[in-house]
Amino acid sequence: MTIEADLRSVASAPDPSDPAAKRGCLLVKGPDQPGMVAAVTTRLRDAGANIVSLDQYSDDPDHGDFFQRVVFQLEDLHSRIPQLQQELDSLLTPLGFTFSLTERAKRKRMAILASKSDHCLLDLLWRYRRGELPVSIPMVISNHTECVEDVRSLQVPFFHVPSATGEDKSASEAKLLELLKGNVDFVVLARYMQILSDDFLKEVGVPVINIHHSFLPAFIGAAPYKRAKERGVKLIGATAHYVTGDLDEGPIIEQDVARVDHSMTAADLQRRGADVERAVLSRAVLWHAEDRVIRHGNHTVVF
Amino acid sequence: MTIEADLRSVASAPDPSDPAAKRGCLLVKGPDQPGMVAAVTTRLRDAGANIVSLDQYSDDPDHGDFFQRVVFQLEDLHSRIPQLQQELDSLLTPLGFTFSLTERAKRKRMAILASKSDHCLLDLLWRYRRGELPVSIPMVISNHTECVEDVRSLQVPFFHVPSATGEDKSASEAKLLELLKGNVDFVVLARYMQILSDDFLKEVGVPVINIHHSFLPAFIGAAPYKRAKERGVKLIGATAHYVTGDLDEGPIIEQDVARVDHSMTAADLQRRGADVERAVLSRAVLWHAEDRVIRHGNHTVVF
Amino acid sequence: MTIEADLRSVASAPDPSDPAAKRGCLLVKGPDQPGMVAAVTTRLRDAGANIVSLDQYSDDPDHGDFFQRVVFQLEDLHSRIPQLQQELDSLLTPLGFTFSLTERAKRKRMAILASKSDHCLLDLLWRYRRGELPVSIPMVISNHTECVEDVRSLQVPFFHVPSATGEDKSASEAKLLELLKGNVDFVVLARYMQILSDDFLKEVGVPVINIHHSFLPAFIGAAPYKRAKERGVKLIGATAHYVTGDLDEGPIIEQDVARVDHSMTAADLQRRGADVERAVLSRAVLWHAEDRVIRHGNHTVVF
Amino acid sequence: MTIEADLRSVASAPDPSDPAAKRGCLLVKGPDQPGMVAAVTTRLRDAGANIVSLDQYSDDPDHGDFFQRVVFQLEDLHSRIPQLQQELDSLLTPLGFTFSLTERAKRKRMAILASKSDHCLLDLLWRYRRGELPVSIPMVISNHTECVEDVRSLQVPFFHVPSATGEDKSASEAKLLELLKGNVDFVVLARYMQILSDDFLKEVGVPVINIHHSFLPAFIGAAPYKRAKERGVKLIGATAHYVTGDLDEGPIIEQDVARVDHSMTAADLQRRGADVERAVLSRAVLWHAEDRVIRHGNHTVVF
Repeated sequence: MTIEADLRSVASAPDPSDPAAKRGCLLVKGPDQPGMVAAVTTRLRDAGANIVSLDQYSDDPDHGDFFQRVVFQLEDLHSRIPQLQQELDSLLTPLGFTFSLTERAKRKRMAILASKSDHCLLDLLWRYRRGELPVSIPMVISNHTECVEDVRSLQVPFFHVPSATGEDKSASEAKLLELLKGNVDFVVLARYMQILSDDFLKEVGVPVINIHHSFLPAFIGAAPYKRAKERGVKLIGATAHYVTGDLDEGPIIEQDVARVDHSMTAADLQRRGADVERAVLSRAVLWHAEDRVIRHGNHTVVF
Repeated sequence: MTIEADLRSVASAPDPSDPAAKRGCLLVKGPDQPGMVAAVTTRLRDAGANIVSLDQYSDDPDHGDFFQRVVFQLEDLHSRIPQLQQELDSLLTPLGFTFSLTERAKRKRMAILASKSDHCLLDLLWRYRRGELPVSIPMVISNHTECVEDVRSLQVPFFHVPSATGEDKSASEAKLLELLKGNVDFVVLARYMQILSDDFLKEVGVPVINIHHSFLPAFIGAAPYKRAKERGVKLIGATAHYVTGDLDEGPIIEQDVARVDHSMTAADLQRRGADVERAVLSRAVLWHAEDRVIRHGNHTVVF
Repeated sequence: MTIEADLRSVASAPDPSDPAAKRGCLLVKGPDQPGMVAAVTTRLRDAGANIVSLDQYSDDPDHGDFFQRVVFQLEDLHSRIPQLQQELDSLLTPLGFTFSLTERAKRKRMAILASKSDHCLLDLLWRYRRGELPVSIPMVISNHTECVEDVRSLQVPFFHVPSATGEDKSASEAKLLELLKGNVDFVVLARYMQILSDDFLKEVGVPVINIHHSFLPAFIGAAPYKRAKERGVKLIGATAHYVTGDLDEGPIIEQDVARVDHSMTAADLQRRGADVERAVLSRAVLWHAEDRVIRHGNHTVVF
Repeated sequence: MTIEADLRSVASAPDPSDPAAKRGCLLVKGPDQPGMVAAVTTRLRDAGANIVSLDQYSDDPDHGDFFQRVVFQLEDLHSRIPQLQQELDSLLTPLGFTFSLTERAKRKRMAILASKSDHCLLDLLWRYRRGELPVSIPMVISNHTECVEDVRSLQVPFFHVPSATGEDKSASEAKLLELLKGNVDFVVLARYMQILSDDFLKEVGVPVINIHHSFLPAFIGAAPYKRAKERGVKLIGATAHYVTGDLDEGPIIEQDVARVDHSMTAADLQRRGADVERAVLSRAVLWHAEDRVIRHGNHTVVF
């Protein structure tokens, strides 16, 4: 299949001459207990790693949960990952911890799902082109075709999957899954505006990030700018969150606001809000791509 | 009654040697029609006034509503107010407009209602003492007595009116009305935390400003910081609004937010939120005192 | 010359069926004196105009300067402009006032000068394409050629004028003037990074807006992010200003900042700063295009 | 001497029944080398400590500098501090590292030096009274006497040390040193407005924090608000920094800004700026009191 061929180059192994090639990131999460930081960092030291930055947080030092992010340098990281993975597994899994170990040089594969409103899509593509996002973009999928040229001009594959309702919705989601499954590490809904089914979320098997065009939990649901205007608010906002089955209720990654006033129409709010949306989404994507976000229940720890 | 004696000095006529003595403010509101700005400003010019600043806004130039604030200078303003009032009345009332004409040198009389949590009360008292708020404070009323010394040390009268529920609530509100009615130009609920009855709001007859410890319409109601923590939000906020019969739903005057993160407890959010609350409330009070806020339905125009 | 032919369509008269066709904007500035607002608004009323919004400000009510912006609606505005212009001239010029009268439907012609760093250029092009900027763009000029496809894909003419130093600088500026003079209403330096001579600024005869990649007056001059890192600042910023002969010293239109921390490298600051730069520049361009900015000495009044 | 008697109670040992009694904080700084995090955290684990939060940062993983803050819990912390201190000393000093080990329950002793302008002083006193600042305040010293009642009403000792110039300046500083030396852990200049001599800074031997009423490095020196008005800036700011011999040049701890516009006078900027000053200073004081700030050359690492 052509898609896979396209993606092969993108997902290839990191170039060992790249100075980032020796940088790794470890995320750890589990039931807090004394000595965890020492145990993990000793294991890294014994492997020859030098820690560049470490953030650790316990939500309750007495029987709470433990979260840790370590960025480290290790020569020949790529070839040594399997063994390090195994060592950490034998240390952490018996204690009830989960962890992820990633190479900085191995970019996460990000699919973007977009619709007609293109400001979030274009902002992501643009930062990607400027080298600001440590991701590869194996595909952009849209239920419309307006953005095809913008996408393909950056050598990014574009696929058109029209939206559907009722029974055809399953067919439409099946088409999405066919494109996405196994080919991407996370999905970004860049104002995609379609509700994805629980089945889809389960099947796709990777994190899905959404940008909600309001300051959640205010103005949950449709037409938030119109409702913000009606309520006479003095600030509007946007919220990037992981998508769960419960619409508009997933773990929040980032939020921001912009000041508005009485003289602005609902269309003005929408235009001003678009700037906030793309800024918030791009920060959330960056932090996810840099392994800074740990999900925990309906919250996130952002290091 | 002693209270009235206390207040007499406060509400006395402005000192004509004060440079602010000649500064007036005119607010106008009504159904937009061509020539309104010209008509109003011509009337002011004919009266000898020099306009310092003028803000005007129409929410729809075709049959919308018209809002205007004019700050002007006029020699002998205090003695000329009655005639100017009459002239503006004969101009504006037949056209369906309402207006208010105030002397800058005549400070609005502000009552503060407080409870145990004193940060908003103290911030207002403090700005008052520093000369940052163009108001007089004829009284602070609290349902507790902790703040009595802070209040009286500034020569501000303090009255203790315990809160009550059920039938006693009427008696308690009657006591409040006895103190407030005729003695104040507006009331500020500085984290008063008691719901005032519709009857009270009607009887008191002056604007009542409240600070809600959340970014409305998110977290309407009780314990917003706890719920913000549970929802994992990345920004918390506060909202100053005019009180209407519909709790937490009155016209918003000002809002602001502060950034929070996963490591903060609900108590941390509350502490951080207190800073936002007092900043937002003090701005709303200042703008109201300076006649910058025009209520319109459930919105405000803030010039 | 081909350029002029290209521009003719852009600079054509507004379409009278456009609802914005009847909207005009008047900026007035001069020595304050009683009755100015009344005089101006009466003249507008007599012409049949309905005022949509009016902002007025005097920097000193006693013998200070007077600034006013009026947005109004007037049927057949385009054909009535000459007469209104004449009437305002006979009213205002004898009093020592200057004014500008513009049609909202007649977009200002904006030239963009760019260099290698493309984030400001792309942000402006993008907002232009989304209809967020009420301008036409008759040309983009760069001393490099990297952006040519981005520009021309939006049907915007691109010209390459290499930079030069010494004697050749005059030739280079002469080439710029040949392209710009008479063809544009203002010029935007979107990280153009070349110093324009006093002669050029005099000759070009239209406002020139620059984005300075620091929070002026901090870090005037070159390499501000490097110096910000060295100084250990906690916020970085950007400044949009009109260009004058005195580099980095022209009237400021807009400024903003972003929070940074110790862990960010100078390159990180630059990347984060690029977001602030494009946001600040796009606001300054919008406000200038909407006739919201009045220059006054080395300051601006932004309504 | 009476002062010392007053201070004795303040500096007394923490109450072991206080839940904070077992919480400690360790700051470490030195030349980065592999295994440092593991070495330090292993030592803490061996001592029985449970890490609550850990932040680590290296400014360059190859031969850069290493900074670490660890908050931990340890039973009987107070009695075990000497041994832990010794163990860390034998681990870290040979490697060229410095460290500080503090008990959270042992509040830092903060002296405030103030002058006529009282907003920063009052904000600190207020937060202290509300329990928001983990410090004790053994003394407030002012070169004026206006604030004496505000200070003493909180049971905080007040001393009046008039400022002087020329030869008398030494005598004045000697009087300050007599009060401060040995009695305080850090000094806050809450708009003290006097330049302290290099000799004084050397003698006093504790960190001195200043609030500069501008956004450094803009408007270094006197009258920044007046100069900000003259320059027509759109944001004003404040900077909290450690005081060094080089005035206005010490390591920056925190900065913030507020938006201003053309209609504000220099006095308005000053009033608006006062809000920023007290917010910025209180954050810097809090972070210093919580051992979040590590000085490094002319920078700070703020965890």
